[in-house]
Amino acid sequence: MQALNPKAPPVAITMGCPVGIGPEIVLRYFSDPIRHRVPAIVVGDLGALRAVARQLSIEANLQPWAPGQAITGEVVPVWPASALEAATLEWGKPDRTSSLAMTGYIEQAVDLIVQGHCSALVTCPIAKTGLKMAGLPFPGHTEMLAHLTKAPRFRMMMAGPRLRVVLVTIHRSLASVSGALTEGELFDCIRMTQQALQRDFGLERPRVAVAGLNPHAGEEGLFGDEEERLIRPALARAAQFGRVSGPWPPDTVFYKALAGGFDAVVAMYHDQGLIPFKLVHFEDGVNVTLGLPIVRTSVDHGTAYDIAGKGLASPASLTAAVDMAASIVANRNKAGQDNG
Amino acid sequence: MQALNPKAPPVAITMGCPVGIGPEIVLRYFSDPIRHRVPAIVVGDLGALRAVARQLSIEANLQPWAPGQAITGEVVPVWPASALEAATLEWGKPDRTSSLAMTGYIEQAVDLIVQGHCSALVTCPIAKTGLKMAGLPFPGHTEMLAHLTKAPRFRMMMAGPRLRVVLVTIHRSLASVSGALTEGELFDCIRMTQQALQRDFGLERPRVAVAGLNPHAGEEGLFGDEEERLIRPALARAAQFGRVSGPWPPDTVFYKALAGGFDAVVAMYHDQGLIPFKLVHFEDGVNVTLGLPIVRTSVDHGTAYDIAGKGLASPASLTAAVDMAASIVANRNKAGQDNG
Repeated sequence: MQALNPKAPPVAITMGCPVGIGPEIVLRYFSDPIRHRVPAIVVGDLGALRAVARQLSIEANLQPWAPGQAITGEVVPVWPASALEAATLEWGKPDRTSSLAMTGYIEQAVDLIVQGHCSALVTCPIAKTGLKMAGLPFPGHTEMLAHLTKAPRFRMMMAGPRLRVVLVTIHRSLASVSGALTEGELFDCIRMTQQALQRDFGLERPRVAVAGLNPHAGEEGLFGDEEERLIRPALARAAQFGRVSGPWPPDTVFYKALAGGFDAVVAMYHDQGLIPFKLVHFEDGVNVTLGLPIVRTSVDHGTAYDIAGKGLASPASLTAAVDMAASIVANRNKAGQDNG
Repeated sequence: MQALNPKAPPVAITMGCPVGIGPEIVLRYFSDPIRHRVPAIVVGDLGALRAVARQLSIEANLQPWAPGQAITGEVVPVWPASALEAATLEWGKPDRTSSLAMTGYIEQAVDLIVQGHCSALVTCPIAKTGLKMAGLPFPGHTEMLAHLTKAPRFRMMMAGPRLRVVLVTIHRSLASVSGALTEGELFDCIRMTQQALQRDFGLERPRVAVAGLNPHAGEEGLFGDEEERLIRPALARAAQFGRVSGPWPPDTVFYKALAGGFDAVVAMYHDQGLIPFKLVHFEDGVNVTLGLPIVRTSVDHGTAYDIAGKGLASPASLTAAVDMAASIVANRNKAGQDNG
C-alpha cells in the first residue's frame, strides 16, 4: 500500500445528488482508514455533509479546502462548491436548487483538474431528472463531461480486477443495435480500448478481444452478417496498431477473458458486456470514461433514492473508483516520464 | 450416493458421431467408478468402441446388451446398433455410412425408451453435416427427437448446480430476435419452465424469473417496448399458474438467480442466457430438452473433430448429463407415486 503524499494533487470526488446516497458514501469513504492510500477532496456542500454526518452518526472532521493545501488525512477536505440550506433538503426529492448545486460540483471539479489543482475526477451518482431540473440538455454525466472538456468522442469501460469490458453501443433497444453499428465506430472503439490499456492500465502489449454480435459469432453468416460485413474489417484495421482478435462467440469470450486470455473485451451492446461484468464484479466494478482529456472514473450505481438517508449505503464502489482513478493517474505519469 | 439397482431400466447413452469425441467420452465415462451411481447402456457400435479403447488404451470390458439384462457394473453394456468397419473410420471425417449409423443410434435409443427398456436418453454430440449426409432434414438433434417422439413443441434448458436458463429464441441473428418474440411463445416458454421445475426438478413452488429484452428492461419504454407489449402480458397469464416475476433488467437477473433468488431464468435470446450460464457452468453444464415425452439430456459441447482420437476429451459434461437424466427420472417417478 503506497503512503499518502500530502503534496500530490488530490483526486476530486464530486458529491453527486445532495439528496441521494452520494453524501453518505463520501462520508463513509473518508471515515475508512483506506482513504490514506489516495489523497482526495470532496467537491460538494460543507453544510449538507455536516448535517448528514450528524444525522447518520458518522464521525468526520469536515473542513474547507483550497487549491494547494496539503492533504493530511486528519480532516475531510471539502471544496465548498455550494451553500445549500441543509434543513430544506429532503431525501430522495431533488429540486431545482439541489440540482443546480449538483451540476455545479461537476463543473467546478473539472475546472480544478484542468487548472492542475486536482489529478482526476471520481463522480458520485446523479439522476437524469436532476440534469433536466438544472436546465441542462445532457442525458447523463458522461455527455456533460464530454461537453465540458470538449471531447469529440468517448466510450464507457467497465473495469474490475478480473474483467474489463468496453461497450460499442450503450443505451438503445436491442432491436436497434445492429443498425447502429458501423465499421468506423467499431474501429474507433477497439483503438480507444488499445490506447486505454496501454496508457491508463500500464499494459505494454495489451490483448483486446472483440465479441461477435450474433450467436456463435454468426456461424459463418448463418445467423447474421455483421461479423463479416462490419466487425472483421474493423478488426483488420485495428490489428495494425496492436494485438486484437475476434469476432469471438459471445457466449465463451468472457470466460476466456476471465481465464486470463485477454486484457479487455469489446462488447457490441449493453447487456452483452454488462451481464458477464456484473456477474463477476457486482460489488467492485468501476465505470471508466475513455476519450476524455481528464481521468474520470465513476461509482457503478445510481442515486438509490429508496435507501438515501437510511444509513444503508456502502462505499465499496466509491473506494474502487478512487483507487482506479489514482492508479490511472500513476500510470499516465509513469508513461509521461518514460517518454520524457 | 445411491447404489446401482441392476433391475432398474438403464439410461441410454447414444454414442454420437463415430468419428467425433463421442466414443472416447463414453469409454472414459464407463471407466470411472462414478458410473456405479446410475445404470446405463451405450447405444452405439461395439467394434468401433473396441477399436477406440485399444487405440487410446482405455480399459473397457465391452459386451453386447439386450433389453431386460441386468446392469452389473462389471461390463460396459452396448446395444449394438450398427456394425461399422472400424478400419474405415477416420477421425474428424464423417461420411454417409458413419452418419447413417449415428442417426440410427438416436432412433433405436428412442425406441428402447418408448418400449420401456430404457429410462432416459443422454446424447453424445452429432454434427449438423452428419444429419445432412444421412439425408435427414433436421437442423439438429433436438428437432430430430421432437419428430421421432411427435412432440409439438420443445425448449432448450441449460441446467447446472447453480443456474438454470431456458431460451425463448435460440439460433437466429440478434437483429431478428425482437420480431420473433410473441406473447404466445413467451407464455408457452414460461409455462414449460414452471412445469419442468416441478416435475423434473422436484420443486413444489418454483420461482421463475423472466429477463427483459432491452437494457434496464427498457427503462419504461425508453429503449424498446417489447417488455410492455409482449413480456408483461405473457407474465400476467403465467402468474395464474405459479410464481413468476419480471421483466428484470438483464444485467442483474442472473446475479440474483445465482444468489438464490430464482430457480430458473427465462432468457429472450441465445447469448443473454448462455453468456452467464457458460461463465458459471462452463465445465458442468447440461442441456435438457423440455417438452419431449421422454427424458432427454445432452452434453454441452460438440463433436470436437479437432481433438477427436487424441485422448484429450473429458467426460465431465457426459457425467453431469447422465446424473441429471437419472435425477429427472427419479423425480418423475416420485411425482407419479405421490399422485398415485
